[in-house]
Amino acid sequence: MRKGELTMNRYFDYAATHPMTKSALDHYVAMARSVYGNPSSLHTHGYMAEDYLTESRRLLKQALGLDMLRGKLLFTGSGSESNYIALTSLRKRMKGSEVITSWQEHDSVALLLDEWEAEGLTVHRLKLKEGRFDHETFTHLLDRDIGLVTFQHVNSDTGWTLPLHNILCQLKYKKVLFHVDGVQALGKIPVSVDGIDAYSFSAHKVGGPKGVGGLYMERLLPPPYYPGHHQYGIRPGTIDVPGICAFVKAFTDRHEQRTRHERNFLAFRAILKEKTSSYVDWLEFDQQSPAIFSFVSKQRDGQWWMTELDGLGFQVSAGSACRAGQNGPNRMLESLGYETSACHGLVRISFGEDTTVEDTTALAEAIVTLARRVGFYEQTLSR
Amino acid sequence: MRKGELTMNRYFDYAATHPMTKSALDHYVAMARSVYGNPSSLHTHGYMAEDYLTESRRLLKQALGLDMLRGKLLFTGSGSESNYIALTSLRKRMKGSEVITSWQEHDSVALLLDEWEAEGLTVHRLKLKEGRFDHETFTHLLDRDIGLVTFQHVNSDTGWTLPLHNILCQLKYKKVLFHVDGVQALGKIPVSVDGIDAYSFSAHKVGGPKGVGGLYMERLLPPPYYPGHHQYGIRPGTIDVPGICAFVKAFTDRHEQRTRHERNFLAFRAILKEKTSSYVDWLEFDQQSPAIFSFVSKQRDGQWWMTELDGLGFQVSAGSACRAGQNGPNRMLESLGYETSACHGLVRISFGEDTTVEDTTALAEAIVTLARRVGFYEQTLSR
Repeated sequence: MRKGELTMNRYFDYAATHPMTKSALDHYVAMARSVYGNPSSLHTHGYMAEDYLTESRRLLKQALGLDMLRGKLLFTGSGSESNYIALTSLRKRMKGSEVITSWQEHDSVALLLDEWEAEGLTVHRLKLKEGRFDHETFTHLLDRDIGLVTFQHVNSDTGWTLPLHNILCQLKYKKVLFHVDGVQALGKIPVSVDGIDAYSFSAHKVGGPKGVGGLYMERLLPPPYYPGHHQYGIRPGTIDVPGICAFVKAFTDRHEQRTRHERNFLAFRAILKEKTSSYVDWLEFDQQSPAIFSFVSKQRDGQWWMTELDGLGFQVSAGSACRAGQNGPNRMLESLGYETSACHGLVRISFGEDTTVEDTTALAEAIVTLARRVGFYEQTLSR
Repeated sequence: MRKGELTMNRYFDYAATHPMTKSALDHYVAMARSVYGNPSSLHTHGYMAEDYLTESRRLLKQALGLDMLRGKLLFTGSGSESNYIALTSLRKRMKGSEVITSWQEHDSVALLLDEWEAEGLTVHRLKLKEGRFDHETFTHLLDRDIGLVTFQHVNSDTGWTLPLHNILCQLKYKKVLFHVDGVQALGKIPVSVDGIDAYSFSAHKVGGPKGVGGLYMERLLPPPYYPGHHQYGIRPGTIDVPGICAFVKAFTDRHEQRTRHERNFLAFRAILKEKTSSYVDWLEFDQQSPAIFSFVSKQRDGQWWMTELDGLGFQVSAGSACRAGQNGPNRMLESLGYETSACHGLVRISFGEDTTVEDTTALAEAIVTLARRVGFYEQTLSR
């Protein structure tokens, strides 16, 4: 990267989308050139594409620590589509009539459940309890006629991480279906999907191409659209083999390097915390993705910070990009018990492959500069 | 291309999927490297991605001869998804209670309509009349309580082309919604979408990437999944800007070169016809896409031809790849009045950017060789 680019764009919005890694992009090009067949075609080019698809599924399962015969992998067009397929399909299989979710889900889950609720289904939305998963209320709710539980594995706004293992143990002997939105978890924290009915993920969050998502299914799900021919009859559309292979390349690379990334990301956090903690409140949790670090500002909205930092050459976020055009309090902050005025002040910093100590230090300094300016303005006002 | 590759793989299945063109792939790489932002993000990288998306829509409209203010373009994950979104959404807007379609639709339309029918909706399926669109029956049906008409613009098995303009004129003053599946038409024949409620297309059929589809909407459609934030609230999921830009590059190139391609493709047809017409029956129509040319074989199934030709290094198809794993008579041949035994004998040859006169001549010779072998075997048998 040239110096000009480095100083012009210091990208800290990897949770919104991670640029394709060099190796994933190279792999995409190689695949698009040589393995372009339609995997449904019954000829050499079709078989070759089908073979690469099978190999992608094998590599992905291997990275997920799964036995080759365990579960099925479906490829979709996005993490949001994976959530849609999982929930729509699982709904057809639900034994109970009520749903448990959290208050701070990604919109692709929250908005769909809002629709279900409007249709008469009962949806329970758990809030956090002192920053932790509310086991007590959850256990209590499980005594009701629950058919489906859906939780985000890693919260997209704050990196807060679900105690997945505990929940799995609780659900093990109940006839409750379990969906996990793992879009911000895969490649960022250790992920074990074994025993989960459906686990959604997305390629572009780990350096794969946009337009590719995935869904692990413990057992095959009923078709959400119509019974078709592609991908176990679950999802129609010519399968994007080059895109899928590039995703698997990005993910397996990331998987191998997870410890290194974690170490780096924790160092970036330490820098941000040390330099700026007197000015802003960082959100930390017992279990948290190292890739996301957010602070709350009481004097300015997240969108103010995003715009001001962008003006200084730093791209951050005010929470999930899917809600970026929407106003309204941040649900995660509400769940954490922040007062309404503060719930607009979330600023999300997220790290990726190209994040450096230098850029992070510069970002910390920019935050301090802006915080001082805000403080000065507040002082002037209050005089 | 090296000589080894040329003789090893002579690809004639461009209708199943067209390899990405060099310029589309180069464009994809450039975009993935520099315009990787999430277009929903409110910062420099987000705005840049949003700008490229807007520009893609503008270029696409321009190539479609549309006024910039006319209609909306939605990007999806595949042509099949575009068909799904169009039909599911239009169904919510239908005034009448019945649907008209054809007997030979692509599965992404046919299978969905089968579901609707199972739910109690009346679906009329027009057959061809002496190889032509059955205007008489269609006009007659329009007197019923029709809410929606959906037709494939170019038939994926034979290249047969719908008299779109006549149908549009007939529907103009009726309150009937009109969807056209243009997956095999866009870039292959002149396309005007003006006045059509929804027109579906796909990127990988014209040398764009797999995993990108599109839908022209005359007026915005109601959301088929749930009311979200992306793309007019119609389709959730981070928008694949590099993929979309690469598709628009492939399509606009193709659009500019359409006359040249048409001239070449018609020359390839002439070669095939001249050399093989004594052995196989080619399907020709008054209006037909130059990119697809099919023959019917009464002695052998399409899958036999596909396999034998593949063995000789030629990739052809036995009809739409989406049905490749399914047995059963070909619906287009049924519609043309072929007897059931012949309805398994469709062989589809389709041309693309890299098709050459030499390869086409070699394919014609291979067809003759196989036809002679079949004829010899038949003779031996009948003795």
